[in-house]
Amino acid sequence: MLSKLKKEVMLANQELQAKNLVIYTWGNVSAIDRQRSLVVIKPSGVAYEDLTPEKMVVLDLDGRIVEGDLRPSSDTPTHLELYRQFKDIGGIVHTHSTWATVWAQAGRGIPCRGTTHADYFYGEIPCTRPLKPAEVEESYELNTGKVIVERFSDLNYQQMPAVLVAEHGPFTWGVDAADAVYNSVVLEQVAQMAYLTKQLSGNDRPVPQYLLDKHYLRKHGPGAYYGQK
Amino acid sequence: MLSKLKKEVMLANQELQAKNLVIYTWGNVSAIDRQRSLVVIKPSGVAYEDLTPEKMVVLDLDGRIVEGDLRPSSDTPTHLELYRQFKDIGGIVHTHSTWATVWAQAGRGIPCRGTTHADYFYGEIPCTRPLKPAEVEESYELNTGKVIVERFSDLNYQQMPAVLVAEHGPFTWGVDAADAVYNSVVLEQVAQMAYLTKQLSGNDRPVPQYLLDKHYLRKHGPGAYYGQK
Amino acid sequence: MLSKLKKEVMLANQELQAKNLVIYTWGNVSAIDRQRSLVVIKPSGVAYEDLTPEKMVVLDLDGRIVEGDLRPSSDTPTHLELYRQFKDIGGIVHTHSTWATVWAQAGRGIPCRGTTHADYFYGEIPCTRPLKPAEVEESYELNTGKVIVERFSDLNYQQMPAVLVAEHGPFTWGVDAADAVYNSVVLEQVAQMAYLTKQLSGNDRPVPQYLLDKHYLRKHGPGAYYGQK
Amino acid sequence: MLSKLKKEVMLANQELQAKNLVIYTWGNVSAIDRQRSLVVIKPSGVAYEDLTPEKMVVLDLDGRIVEGDLRPSSDTPTHLELYRQFKDIGGIVHTHSTWATVWAQAGRGIPCRGTTHADYFYGEIPCTRPLKPAEVEESYELNTGKVIVERFSDLNYQQMPAVLVAEHGPFTWGVDAADAVYNSVVLEQVAQMAYLTKQLSGNDRPVPQYLLDKHYLRKHGPGAYYGQK
Repeated sequence: MLSKLKKEVMLANQELQAKNLVIYTWGNVSAIDRQRSLVVIKPSGVAYEDLTPEKMVVLDLDGRIVEGDLRPSSDTPTHLELYRQFKDIGGIVHTHSTWATVWAQAGRGIPCRGTTHADYFYGEIPCTRPLKPAEVEESYELNTGKVIVERFSDLNYQQMPAVLVAEHGPFTWGVDAADAVYNSVVLEQVAQMAYLTKQLSGNDRPVPQYLLDKHYLRKHGPGAYYGQK
Repeated sequence: MLSKLKKEVMLANQELQAKNLVIYTWGNVSAIDRQRSLVVIKPSGVAYEDLTPEKMVVLDLDGRIVEGDLRPSSDTPTHLELYRQFKDIGGIVHTHSTWATVWAQAGRGIPCRGTTHADYFYGEIPCTRPLKPAEVEESYELNTGKVIVERFSDLNYQQMPAVLVAEHGPFTWGVDAADAVYNSVVLEQVAQMAYLTKQLSGNDRPVPQYLLDKHYLRKHGPGAYYGQK
Repeated sequence: MLSKLKKEVMLANQELQAKNLVIYTWGNVSAIDRQRSLVVIKPSGVAYEDLTPEKMVVLDLDGRIVEGDLRPSSDTPTHLELYRQFKDIGGIVHTHSTWATVWAQAGRGIPCRGTTHADYFYGEIPCTRPLKPAEVEESYELNTGKVIVERFSDLNYQQMPAVLVAEHGPFTWGVDAADAVYNSVVLEQVAQMAYLTKQLSGNDRPVPQYLLDKHYLRKHGPGAYYGQK
Repeated sequence: MLSKLKKEVMLANQELQAKNLVIYTWGNVSAIDRQRSLVVIKPSGVAYEDLTPEKMVVLDLDGRIVEGDLRPSSDTPTHLELYRQFKDIGGIVHTHSTWATVWAQAGRGIPCRGTTHADYFYGEIPCTRPLKPAEVEESYELNTGKVIVERFSDLNYQQMPAVLVAEHGPFTWGVDAADAVYNSVVLEQVAQMAYLTKQLSGNDRPVPQYLLDKHYLRKHGPGAYYGQK
């Protein structure tokens, strides 16, 4: 079942390593079949080079394992919460990539400092609040998903396919697993440049709204004119 | 038509990736045939590894497509403006390379901190002013070219083959596409060293004029004595 | 004798190079056979690519060479002291990896800034006091081991498999040679992210204890639920 | 003539590229045959991958070309001055390696912040004074050599095989070409760690003299005990 999706998820997980977003087993990718409401995710603690499509774990949106002999990623409840709340996303990535994690550890969102950022993220990449003791002690991974959703109460997850979980690291999403990985790669680059820009300029000033609009909208939405038709 | 130039432009685009100046499709190279007044440029949003000479787009200096089935780079109007105004350049590169982009995002020119810089760029590498709302909303890419040209009103583009567009990133040029890529590689290295020098020294002091003259002129112009005859 | 352990130690030394923790001969790995109380360690000043199992040096816990034609690593007395005092460790690594060494050179422990750190190290990674003149002049390498042990007088070496020796660099340990190398890789990544987080945030605030507990204990101890059973 | 030395110099030049100390043609290595008083050096502006032993240039200590069809490195007069004044050195390297150049551009010597530095350089790696206008305008490369020698008036070049030329970059030397390259690699690593240590600690404090003595002397001189006999 879902053999095509399993292969996509496997390849997307391996792409994390190829793009230097992870060492050892420090990240996971999932994807969802929206018609069947089934999620495919990396098994926990398995090295990327040892992955096969058969080792992928299939779950329903309530977290019941439908297929697979291995335990799913320990971050699975976070993924499931995001799939439940962000109805249009098709893939999710979690990593501890260096520069994005640094912003998360500092508890700060990443301001939009230039057009590279504006091409992909429509404004400051948000950082969640820290989880409270009770939220950590019980259902920690589920609550991680909940604080992300809370942070997006006034944000559009389709125009902002990334978030930083405070004291932890980034999550990104996209139309499918490969798209979510793409957004993780871009996030890491944008996070590095924003860090260096802050150190060089000594300020946190974002680009003006009109430049953000121009760049984001020339790549996204009905008036987009970047790329091929 | 222009099959040799198309191949040069294709290879120069792929060199951006080989030199780690770009990820995904984050940069473009063009070149001009000055006799025919025709420009060859990368197609928009196509991966470097998928480029072929036939996929290159040929335009005249007014932006009319003369050859090619694909849309040209969205930055094409910037390239064309530079070819129209800087009469002797043969190739142009645009990237979002990390360190040069950081200076652009901070809105600062790169001071000449040492002889590495002085060997290639005759003084501070300039940064444009930010574009105004009206300039962004209409003919954005053309206006990007215009603010570059404006910034060079009292600068010699032959002695300064690079510029930073504020809030955006670098453009470089040269006698041909390969030379423009070379200048992008050097710019990136110089940008990194200037950033680190500023953080270490706590100041922005450039090298004295007599050292700049010596290094620039021993490699450029009639008295040059670097390299082979 | 100990041919399996010699091979493991050889491979673990070569892994230091593969993981970019060392250049030239700037690090060493050892392992212990606890039943025979014999230690296998890299020979001093030999390039990683020239290592063979036969070139490994075998010593007893008093430092007498039991097997091997080459001199052992000059850091051997440090390793032996750690094996004598930390009764359960099976492998030790010493490197001069960049980011961990920077914290050691600054004489500071690495605060736990996020969950990446908390997954492996149960609190701040400690830094020793500097050695005193008499400790340096006589039995320097042995005294390096002694200040590490002194620093752990109120720490649990099983929950904190790494230390920084002030003005010098890191040591890590683990259940075997490969595990100790793994901890060195993680230490280097954590050290880099803590450095960048400090520069970005301007503070040294660690994560709260309840988050540290959650992450450390979900991977270690009886309640662990990360990875496969 | 000197075919063995030419090959060594060629390989040492190519090693600069393999060790990421140079891009394009940004560095040069030479060696001297002390018995014949002849120096072999890289030709100017030739790519490392295009070098052959036959392309190496041979000069006497007065700068007369004895063999070779190509122009020698433009830095040749600096090399020759060092060979004339530092009677025991056998090889010299000049690069614009990133971190060492940053210290040179800041006009600062590199303080000894830890044992990694102390293992190779006996104290602060010195930085020259800037050259004066007249020194730059006439015999610039020779005067670069002279300010290095001036800086060593109270330093022992055998215990300090590296220097930073202010506003320019590093030179290193050694018993032969390969040894000089080794010292350039170590210098670059030490320069990076000293930069990061300064930013982390906020101070410039070197290690105490007794630790410097211990580390330098356990690897150098009659009491050395590092490596194999």
